[in-house]
Amino acid sequence: MLQGMTHEQIAQRIAEVALLHGTFTLRSGRTSHYYLDKYLFSTEPQILRQLGALFAQRAGDGIHRLAGAELGGIPLVTAASLASGLPCIFIRNQKKEYGTAKQLEGRLDPGDRVMLVEDVCTSGGQVLEAAKVIEGQGASVAKIVATIDRLEGARETIEAAGYRFESLFTRADLGV
Amino acid sequence: MLQGMTHEQIAQRIAEVALLHGTFTLRSGRTSHYYLDKYLFSTEPQILRQLGALFAQRAGDGIHRLAGAELGGIPLVTAASLASGLPCIFIRNQKKEYGTAKQLEGRLDPGDRVMLVEDVCTSGGQVLEAAKVIEGQGASVAKIVATIDRLEGARETIEAAGYRFESLFTRADLGV
Repeated sequence: MLQGMTHEQIAQRIAEVALLHGTFTLRSGRTSHYYLDKYLFSTEPQILRQLGALFAQRAGDGIHRLAGAELGGIPLVTAASLASGLPCIFIRNQKKEYGTAKQLEGRLDPGDRVMLVEDVCTSGGQVLEAAKVIEGQGASVAKIVATIDRLEGARETIEAAGYRFESLFTRADLGV
Repeated sequence: MLQGMTHEQIAQRIAEVALLHGTFTLRSGRTSHYYLDKYLFSTEPQILRQLGALFAQRAGDGIHRLAGAELGGIPLVTAASLASGLPCIFIRNQKKEYGTAKQLEGRLDPGDRVMLVEDVCTSGGQVLEAAKVIEGQGASVAKIVATIDRLEGARETIEAAGYRFESLFTRADLGV
């Protein structure tokens, strides 16, 4: 459907390039028998272009701007911005100490409705922190769209916090 | 030349959206009467698309991969990767402490010839640190291409360190 690649074929390409097997400690502190190295797919333009187009399809009417969080969300939101024509913002992990000090880069106006693009969602905690930064500027988070949902509680946590959650792919799509 | 925008028109758009006047402390510690907020142009897809195409033109034969450093270089190298079809790598400011701990994200093979994409060059110190990370993996830096050269010594520093340096625009192109 996208330049000849089906949803299943994109998932297969992601699994081929980005799925590592072994024992890994995740950001949340949990251990996992697999690691999804998001950078191994987000640095491959043929895959990233497909993801950008999928995100653009999710950005319906009423979305003013896309957002992504440092670092993994940045290439994804950039590709989504290029595919959709919507401007984007970047959310830092912490404030920088030089120049125009702020946690949010790019332009965000009060009242903007934002689609927040995430890379891989595990517990969902990180993306909720990013949502708070957006709301702290008087804008709203219309929905949160993950590239891959690991099916480990992110949806429940994000929906319980009052946000709409979608994902392009799940762990199951990748065969793990 | 690029979808109807000349080099001069792109420079003018960058100046319109990203040039701030006032007193600013730069990363280097210097003060400046203007600040170029690189995120104000890298989050605008119409401008970013043009920059991606200009970077792609600079990536001639023999370049295997593009690289960009956190955070400002990431949207630029992503756009350049999408425009050129060349894969990219992302260089972190410091090692992360979870998952597959490393300073370099994406795949880089020994012997790869890399074009390093930078946002705004002032002293050139930051981009040389990124070049060292690439060389530490057994790859080489074929050239360093800045989006904007502030004409404050970056070229001299980078060339003295033995690298080829180019820039898409200079401060003069922006009229400051």
